[in-house]
Amino acid sequence: MKQSSLFIKTRKQAPADEVSKNARLLIRAGFIHKEAAGVYSYLPLGLRVLERINTIIREEMAGLGAEEAAFTTLQNPETWKKSGRWELPVWFKTALNDGGELGLGWTHEEAVTALMKNHVSSYKDLPRKIFQIHTKFRNEERAKSGLLRGREFLMKDLYSFHTTEEDLDAFYEKAKEAYRQIFERVGIGGETHVTLSSGGDFSPYSHEFQTLSPAGEDTIYLSREKNIAINQEIYTEKTRASLGLSSDELTEETAIEVGNIFKLGTRFSAPLGLMYKDAKGESQPVIMGSYGIGPGRIMGTIAELFSDERGLVWPEAVAPFSVHLLRIGNTDAVIETADALYRHIAEKGERVLFDDREDASAGEKFADSDLFGIPLRLVVSEKSLSAGGIEVKKRNENESRVIPESELPAFVKGESA
Amino acid sequence: MKQSSLFIKTRKQAPADEVSKNARLLIRAGFIHKEAAGVYSYLPLGLRVLERINTIIREEMAGLGAEEAAFTTLQNPETWKKSGRWELPVWFKTALNDGGELGLGWTHEEAVTALMKNHVSSYKDLPRKIFQIHTKFRNEERAKSGLLRGREFLMKDLYSFHTTEEDLDAFYEKAKEAYRQIFERVGIGGETHVTLSSGGDFSPYSHEFQTLSPAGEDTIYLSREKNIAINQEIYTEKTRASLGLSSDELTEETAIEVGNIFKLGTRFSAPLGLMYKDAKGESQPVIMGSYGIGPGRIMGTIAELFSDERGLVWPEAVAPFSVHLLRIGNTDAVIETADALYRHIAEKGERVLFDDREDASAGEKFADSDLFGIPLRLVVSEKSLSAGGIEVKKRNENESRVIPESELPAFVKGESA
Repeated sequence: MKQSSLFIKTRKQAPADEVSKNARLLIRAGFIHKEAAGVYSYLPLGLRVLERINTIIREEMAGLGAEEAAFTTLQNPETWKKSGRWELPVWFKTALNDGGELGLGWTHEEAVTALMKNHVSSYKDLPRKIFQIHTKFRNEERAKSGLLRGREFLMKDLYSFHTTEEDLDAFYEKAKEAYRQIFERVGIGGETHVTLSSGGDFSPYSHEFQTLSPAGEDTIYLSREKNIAINQEIYTEKTRASLGLSSDELTEETAIEVGNIFKLGTRFSAPLGLMYKDAKGESQPVIMGSYGIGPGRIMGTIAELFSDERGLVWPEAVAPFSVHLLRIGNTDAVIETADALYRHIAEKGERVLFDDREDASAGEKFADSDLFGIPLRLVVSEKSLSAGGIEVKKRNENESRVIPESELPAFVKGESA
Repeated sequence: MKQSSLFIKTRKQAPADEVSKNARLLIRAGFIHKEAAGVYSYLPLGLRVLERINTIIREEMAGLGAEEAAFTTLQNPETWKKSGRWELPVWFKTALNDGGELGLGWTHEEAVTALMKNHVSSYKDLPRKIFQIHTKFRNEERAKSGLLRGREFLMKDLYSFHTTEEDLDAFYEKAKEAYRQIFERVGIGGETHVTLSSGGDFSPYSHEFQTLSPAGEDTIYLSREKNIAINQEIYTEKTRASLGLSSDELTEETAIEVGNIFKLGTRFSAPLGLMYKDAKGESQPVIMGSYGIGPGRIMGTIAELFSDERGLVWPEAVAPFSVHLLRIGNTDAVIETADALYRHIAEKGERVLFDDREDASAGEKFADSDLFGIPLRLVVSEKSLSAGGIEVKKRNENESRVIPESELPAFVKGESA
């Protein structure tokens, strides 16, 4: 894509009321736009990052045998009164002109449990797994963390339905592993720790995925050595003892909750009446699990972890483009070389952004490139041509060097490589 | 995909309160689920159809040079008060717990105009085109037409920004042609007519795309011969005269509005202050157009147009699968032949659903297949094997025939063909 026709322009300043690092950087780079506190539009470059993350999530969900659906935002109160969650303050509520209250979905356990009643009758219909990547709404009091805590935000929510606890347990472990893969693949695996959190009636613990960052709102107690962490909310002498841990092997850390998985048991199937007939013909409540992850929150977390004073530093797997090609100067040689290089890279199927702007200075182009954070920067200029080729610099390294065009394939492999 | 693990089951009956043909069929087939009047979840097969339609739309938007974004549902009243549209009854409104009213976006002209102020300053920044495929909310009094009129529904909305009317006019014609292509490609081109509708201050007419169907809520006056139609709302002697038409060459038709395009001019840029500096350095309001299309409404329209008493009849381009392979009977020969055929077709990249269920009768399998409406049905049974091969039947034809396996490639080409 040519930058001269790019929809957005970068900004020197973020809005004065925006305090979070991730939102300030992403707004300045033109990746997102702030509509209201905790409410952000995704502009073309931001949507590209989000879709890269979503694609990774979808691949891991397919590996779990989960099918994709899209549930609704507008929710019927009757469904939620059965579980006792209609009165929670988290709801945004609204009303029909012709009478009748509705809520805006902030999660979908009740909705998916209710609709499954049409599709499950026998043990032969189980197990089933369904997920969506869908916008959720939460009436948060605090919304000052940019993409880390939204009032409107994207969520991948997966629900699983089983006949036995053993089947749930086995699937839960597979889902945990799929989550690990997701965080690894988007580039935050090293900083992300499985963390024990509060469970519920059905299970003593749930599991969160917590990414270490000073921008986080959670406190966890981590043993790197034993690869285990405990959320502050359940951090007691008793919890430690049950896990065979002493307080001096745990360090207090600030972290961002990027995912959570939860054994629901019959918490929703019982009150909503989602039953199946077992092999003996007896009616049993379906056993459920739910598994959440926030693609936008992941994007914000990556911006917090991988950025510097000059801008964003995207890991290759989620970058909006792989290559940022800059044309500096307007001599015939520069224009011809850069244009030919752009066509060549694009033809190879590489995701390349070409800064072909004629009215932007070299300084503006370099500043925008650092702000965008595309992993590999190529510069064609009089200077690079005199030095024998194309200047190459990775965004996460400080040194640039000039290489002859013949060596480029080692850097620019294309999608097929 | 194997039908034995498919998330949904078909239903013999649609909900008693569902009156529209498209929703009754799609609910029975397990493509959608009714949450409330005008509010439908998309289940896996339905989401597949929707995504096929979205892919076609995205390709045509790319052809127009439009970039994709995702605006927000929650809308700030201040933005909409400037255009005077905050008081319309179409809004679903909601409120923050800590004070402050918000609306749920039912269109996005104001939102996109406001955010463009950060990205447009000079004539050099124009033209620009941006679109999204995003959920909209409308507080409709009537919501009895299934996917044809939702309170919550998907919409592709494209916005264009220009310096001159001529530039808008030229783009508007390109967009009109892209819309024609979309309706042609999804299979309703023959029944869909460009229809003049009310314009506004800036332009005498807007254009709707109206698909002839008794399920429609609009009345149009159509000349097939001259390939022109007029919406009832502007159908006057004066309109007819201005178009050189007489009433006896027009027939009254019932139709579904599947898309509309509109020259906005400065209707939103002026009150919201979206200005650019022209070549002389003078400040001018940006000239805009907007272009809407409903992917879910298209899906509902296709269900209305292409269905019979036995179920849905999807055009190939939007079908959830291309091939429905049915295994009838449990003899070794049938199982081996069907399983091998399934692997073979899937390996070729064809989108195949394999009814491998062991506990479903032949009658149930045939009934489900007709209900799903996948274009090509293949049956492997003792009967077909005795007759020399595989039974082949197209969903939109009545006759089936048995062909030897060697002739299958002519029917099952795979994605690469």
